[in-house]
Amino acid sequence: MSGTLYLLPAPISAGSLHGSLPPEVIKLAHRIENFLVEDAKAARAFLKRLGHPKPLRELSVIEIGHAPHEADISQWLAPLGAGVDVAVLSEAGCPAIADPGATLVAAAHRNGWRVRPLVGPSSILLALMASGLDGQRFRFVGYLPIAAGERAAAIQTLERTSRRGETQVFIETPYRNTAVFEALLQHCQPATRLAVAVDLTGDEESAQQCTVKEWRTRPADAWPAFVKRPAVFCLLA
Amino acid sequence: MSGTLYLLPAPISAGSLHGSLPPEVIKLAHRIENFLVEDAKAARAFLKRLGHPKPLRELSVIEIGHAPHEADISQWLAPLGAGVDVAVLSEAGCPAIADPGATLVAAAHRNGWRVRPLVGPSSILLALMASGLDGQRFRFVGYLPIAAGERAAAIQTLERTSRRGETQVFIETPYRNTAVFEALLQHCQPATRLAVAVDLTGDEESAQQCTVKEWRTRPADAWPAFVKRPAVFCLLA
Repeated sequence: MSGTLYLLPAPISAGSLHGSLPPEVIKLAHRIENFLVEDAKAARAFLKRLGHPKPLRELSVIEIGHAPHEADISQWLAPLGAGVDVAVLSEAGCPAIADPGATLVAAAHRNGWRVRPLVGPSSILLALMASGLDGQRFRFVGYLPIAAGERAAAIQTLERTSRRGETQVFIETPYRNTAVFEALLQHCQPATRLAVAVDLTGDEESAQQCTVKEWRTRPADAWPAFVKRPAVFCLLA
Repeated sequence: MSGTLYLLPAPISAGSLHGSLPPEVIKLAHRIENFLVEDAKAARAFLKRLGHPKPLRELSVIEIGHAPHEADISQWLAPLGAGVDVAVLSEAGCPAIADPGATLVAAAHRNGWRVRPLVGPSSILLALMASGLDGQRFRFVGYLPIAAGERAAAIQTLERTSRRGETQVFIETPYRNTAVFEALLQHCQPATRLAVAVDLTGDEESAQQCTVKEWRTRPADAWPAFVKRPAVFCLLA
């Protein structure tokens, strides 16, 4: 019998372990000795925090990179064929969602090996829940372009797309949050609703939503505290 | 100080409590006495299973319906203004994601009340993780049309949309899973990849992905066991 490829979420931001992961997920992780990870240092810190019963040096922790080669993937997943479980682990959040891992999962499916996704935090999903915007239909588009002109055009496309009744969700690297927020206030229509979730599951968590017009009237010191903190944006015209 | 509107996920399918919810989420739910719910019967069963310390009859459990009136929402959320916490609870999964609740969250934001989304299971997210399809960009579209002609057209539109590198995610009511799967095999291109996740977090959990061409060669008894079980479909051309 072959092993199972587990998709093991990790806490996001500085989120607490016991606010982020169900106990059976932690118990399961304790039984796994082969980890394919986004970032080895973060993975070892997480496994230590998880109280993994094996000494860390006895665990296999392999960094998969962002575009792994098929030959490497075959080698990494070989334990599955020998009946040994393997887990894919992100630096934070859910593997294979806005993070590497999907190509490994696809390879497991090609071999007919069992794939099991485990429950854990996703900033995208938590932000959408907290947005108060329509969660019946939504779209996650990753990052916006960095150049001002392209970003403005992308924002206007998102706004237009959202008019079909589909909330648009996107993320940004923390140091660009202010620039993206300013661009959103500049380029969106006044009636468009914009939600910003910051530091989800963390000590500085906040979630706010109002129209662009209302955001524009708030002074910058009443903006979400997204400077150097992870944020997720949701937009619905 | 005002109360907090918590978004409290519930186990999906027959999923175990301790495989679905972090202990701090359960602890938090134990402190809440006001619940706004999709289904009162399911909510009471969940609160009992959760080991809520108060007798169930002393808890406020109000069904919100699918299109609550503003006047009702104001009344239901009134405890927040008085400093009392309230939780929104779905029948299964995450409130306000493919489920009612978003209008309540929006009302809380209008009043400036704190909104906190809690970690728990989402079949949409778990299915996407397990699909092996691109999770960098994805779109959730809810249910497909029921009439055969409209459904065929919707499937072809989804397939075309997915060509911009965006995984398309949709759900179906269990008794229509076979019809939708057959329509997908009939109307999609052979090279389109189709993932089906069934009974996520449950005892009969399965996740499979291959091309439409490969699905077509499999006999019906090798299809996913989605008859009368909740399923999530992911498609990427």
